Amino acid sequence: MANKYISIRNLKFMLHEVLDLSKVNSLPKFQDYDAEAYDMALDTVKDLSDTYLFPILREMDKKKAYYDETSGTVKVHPGLQKAIKALGAGGWIGTYATYEQGGQQMPNVLLNSARVIMHAANANAAAYTLLTDGASNLIRSFGSTALNEKYVPKMMAGEWQGTMALTEPQAGSSLSDVTTTATLMEDGSYKIKGQKIYISGGDYETTENIIHLTLARIEGAPAGTKGISLFVVPKYREEEGSFVSNDVTTAGLYGKMGQRGYVAAHLMMGEQDDCKGYLVGQEHRGLRYMFQMMNEARIGTGAMASGTASAAYYASLQYANERPQGRHPSNKDATQPQVLIIEHADVRRMLLFQKSISEGGIALVQLCAYYSDIAENATGEAKEDAHLLLELLTPVVKSYPSEWGNLAVSAGMQVLGGAGYTDDFPLEQYYRDIRINAIYEGTTTIHGMDILGRKIMAQNGRALKLLLEEMKSTIDGAAKNAALQTYAGKLGNAAKSLHETSMHLVQLAMKDRPEVFLSDATLYLEMFGIVTVSWLWLKQALAAQTAIDNKATGEEHLFYQGKVHTMKYYFEYELPKIQPLIERLKSTEKLTLDIESAYIN
Amino acid sequence: MANKYISIRNLKFMLHEVLDLSKVNSLPKFQDYDAEAYDMALDTVKDLSDTYLFPILREMDKKKAYYDETSGTVKVHPGLQKAIKALGAGGWIGTYATYEQGGQQMPNVLLNSARVIMHAANANAAAYTLLTDGASNLIRSFGSTALNEKYVPKMMAGEWQGTMALTEPQAGSSLSDVTTTATLMEDGSYKIKGQKIYISGGDYETTENIIHLTLARIEGAPAGTKGISLFVVPKYREEEGSFVSNDVTTAGLYGKMGQRGYVAAHLMMGEQDDCKGYLVGQEHRGLRYMFQMMNEARIGTGAMASGTASAAYYASLQYANERPQGRHPSNKDATQPQVLIIEHADVRRMLLFQKSISEGGIALVQLCAYYSDIAENATGEAKEDAHLLLELLTPVVKSYPSEWGNLAVSAGMQVLGGAGYTDDFPLEQYYRDIRINAIYEGTTTIHGMDILGRKIMAQNGRALKLLLEEMKSTIDGAAKNAALQTYAGKLGNAAKSLHETSMHLVQLAMKDRPEVFLSDATLYLEMFGIVTVSWLWLKQALAAQTAIDNKATGEEHLFYQGKVHTMKYYFEYELPKIQPLIERLKSTEKLTLDIESAYIN
Repeated sequence: MANKYISIRNLKFMLHEVLDLSKVNSLPKFQDYDAEAYDMALDTVKDLSDTYLFPILREMDKKKAYYDETSGTVKVHPGLQKAIKALGAGGWIGTYATYEQGGQQMPNVLLNSARVIMHAANANAAAYTLLTDGASNLIRSFGSTALNEKYVPKMMAGEWQGTMALTEPQAGSSLSDVTTTATLMEDGSYKIKGQKIYISGGDYETTENIIHLTLARIEGAPAGTKGISLFVVPKYREEEGSFVSNDVTTAGLYGKMGQRGYVAAHLMMGEQDDCKGYLVGQEHRGLRYMFQMMNEARIGTGAMASGTASAAYYASLQYANERPQGRHPSNKDATQPQVLIIEHADVRRMLLFQKSISEGGIALVQLCAYYSDIAENATGEAKEDAHLLLELLTPVVKSYPSEWGNLAVSAGMQVLGGAGYTDDFPLEQYYRDIRINAIYEGTTTIHGMDILGRKIMAQNGRALKLLLEEMKSTIDGAAKNAALQTYAGKLGNAAKSLHETSMHLVQLAMKDRPEVFLSDATLYLEMFGIVTVSWLWLKQALAAQTAIDNKATGEEHLFYQGKVHTMKYYFEYELPKIQPLIERLKSTEKLTLDIESAYIN
Repeated sequence: MANKYISIRNLKFMLHEVLDLSKVNSLPKFQDYDAEAYDMALDTVKDLSDTYLFPILREMDKKKAYYDETSGTVKVHPGLQKAIKALGAGGWIGTYATYEQGGQQMPNVLLNSARVIMHAANANAAAYTLLTDGASNLIRSFGSTALNEKYVPKMMAGEWQGTMALTEPQAGSSLSDVTTTATLMEDGSYKIKGQKIYISGGDYETTENIIHLTLARIEGAPAGTKGISLFVVPKYREEEGSFVSNDVTTAGLYGKMGQRGYVAAHLMMGEQDDCKGYLVGQEHRGLRYMFQMMNEARIGTGAMASGTASAAYYASLQYANERPQGRHPSNKDATQPQVLIIEHADVRRMLLFQKSISEGGIALVQLCAYYSDIAENATGEAKEDAHLLLELLTPVVKSYPSEWGNLAVSAGMQVLGGAGYTDDFPLEQYYRDIRINAIYEGTTTIHGMDILGRKIMAQNGRALKLLLEEMKSTIDGAAKNAALQTYAGKLGNAAKSLHETSMHLVQLAMKDRPEVFLSDATLYLEMFGIVTVSWLWLKQALAAQTAIDNKATGEEHLFYQGKVHTMKYYFEYELPKIQPLIERLKSTEKLTLDIESAYIN
């Protein structure tokens, strides 16, 4: 490929030099995965992405998915189904499942590294397969054998699409208000009736069938989240050996600012009173089940945002290395040639910002996937600790790459100046595409409430304690290296501030109603993200500096220097941004709670 | 109109209650303008905007401007020319010109307040007229009587479009590298040859003629900016009483992410060796002349960004006041009705952010326009001081609303959640539209270099001293009001920090090469903007608190409370953001200068 969108070297660096993979690979499930297997998987998915995903990225945007009124079908790019089938055939749907289940038994840490590649190549197309992956995992985890046999193999082959159908017109962030109804029928299935909106992958004509994992309320169920059940609702259901319409119709597609190749449908279920759903697991436990898919999707959202940020970074970097413009401030001689813009300090600042966010986000994704492998497959304390860390960091991995990714891509557009605003370059698409991630799978606000209202409080704050211990271990390592000492000190102070601010808020929670301590939860999440990513940068710099000290040469030397200097960038320019957040979080001025709404006019 | 996009009350508040307008209205040129005249002008332009601009905002985006290969013409929305002519007929092109010149002798402070309205209604359409306004001012200021008579009246009527043709493929930010040539002909005109890119309003079929104010280099001119001259290059030139093509052709339009109704053309001048240009003023002084239009356009860019931020704010506010979703954290009872989202603390935070940025930006635009009236029309020290303040704040008024406007509109989209990402609501257009402002008229980087490299240094830092005195006067006033004392103290500290940081950088400039002190000029500009807008918020809060203390009632009471509380928001959430910027500006780690470009990999 002419255009670089991801650094495979970087993904391998995290896997082999930063994370302690032995904790994953020593688990029985993953015993086939040695270093070579990791590298081969990444190289394979890079080839698939080069062949099927990246080439149709821009076209999927320019010729967006649309609902064709005449035929009543949803049209998508012709390359999409080829890509989905190729990924399915390659084993990239349901990859985490065991060999017996038809999967690869692939560690999540590797799988999510691979996903970053796919998203960087073309998030619009990759997203379809990841959705099917999550939906098939959900059926596998909680569905009956019958449901498993009927749906999962077709989904894993990329022949049937999976979706998650949660949101309704009156229930967006507030899932307790879901009103879609499910009425038990004589045949054991349920009659489903309701509307679902913003359903990604919700309808398109080139897939044989679409399997909606749907939240609905069984008649007589309790109000709120405890009365929600999970159903498989296919677009076409099998009856007497043939497939018939299951009365799931598309009212229309949403006209999205970005990810225009990735369908978002408004679905009507049971308009003709003929929509059947099949209960997954037990009644009223639907939201609990759905959280498995949601939590996977939250890491997936981080991977998507990091991937797009990565692609934007390499597009900006290429431009900066090719475009001459202006001269250094100390040279006003217009008869001399112009310099490449990468020579300008402010362009470098913007590029380092992009690199720090995209690689910081990728590191976070890999870390969370790594914890999930241990949480799901280890035993005892290791399992429990990893579970707590994963729970704690899920709102961070969802939100940090999404929020900061917007800014990183914006800086990337700025590197190109006017050119970046035009469709002659991909930055404008990345800018539009990445913006949705802060909304997918719970807005940033929701995740702020989650981390501060639930995750920090759980088990007397044990998760935070574990995270601070992990940081401490990196700090101790870095403090022993003269080149990193200063930064070890800075991270130490930041970790202390994170702890103090958390304690301050926890105390507030005990003294006053929840509105008070939660009022700036979004800022808390932001601070948490910056400190966490600072830690991951120091962790990377420690590995890189060690390699430099061991006389790395050539391209490798440049790679490691890039890591160390991006860490320095992050500590110089980004880490200090926690100060105003902390100041606000400790302020007693409860502005947003105390004022009357009418003052906002 | 169903949809609110601007607060006229707010514009009037700044004019009548915050700025000391007597300093403008006492100038002979503006003697006809009393308070009533100001209000009438704003109400008139609001009516025009409601009728001609706002209704076509979304359509101009959805049916974007395009180059029709068959006819070789540029197609635009049919409502555009009607809007331009209506604004021309209403006197809104060349409005600042004297009565004798056919203008309204309107103060810039009023004119720019009116422009904020137009931009809030539809920046895509309003921009055409403001470009013609600036181009006609340029001919009026520096062109011969013949040029004036031939071009200005048609432009002021909205019949002929004006443009500024600066950028070339190899000369974006670096105007010293302009290579378009001008060769003196026997008839006294110049033969023009070259390419101009990103020319806003550069071609469209519904206007009778297009007058390009073009930078070019006369044969034998010195290198660099001192060899650039300014020419009028019309699309059609008059010959023997009829209009003939002047060999300015459109190679194509740029496909822009936003402002898709506002043409950006790639122009070829003199491909057939038959393009005539007419020298404006003297040879080699073109860039100096052009700076008049550029400086106007920089305030104009601030007005555009503030206007779009305002429209986005009201769209979000309306949604927040209509959309029920979720419940307060202390109420988990799903059987109770959902609350309006404006009741949620984090939604309020985002709305206050939007309000603080859009109204802060508007205040900055009005302030700079106010200084320009005094700078251009007063005498003695008042004139000189206003000129220095205007020069100092031009990079700020250009950049602050542009950069922060992006974030404000993004917050506005977040208020709507998934709905904000769809074209069912205007937020997604505002998000795309506003992004260009940080690139127009010099990127933010260029303005950082300008304020730190030139403006702060001029006259031994007298401009900054004047600004700090203005701040001091507001601080002293606020310190006397118990409700504002705390904030007076905070602004005092911030002003002190601004001064100290500036002195630190000025000293660095004396010690080392310019690259060093300029390396983070963008951060300096950001800090400068935040402190300046904090001042403007305290200035507004002082006026508002005084009105509250004087027992304002009803809607007026709410309006003033909104002002005071938005100031509090700004001081609590935004002003502290200067701390990390200052920390970085004082750091000795010269990261972006010292590293090798190859480390950014």
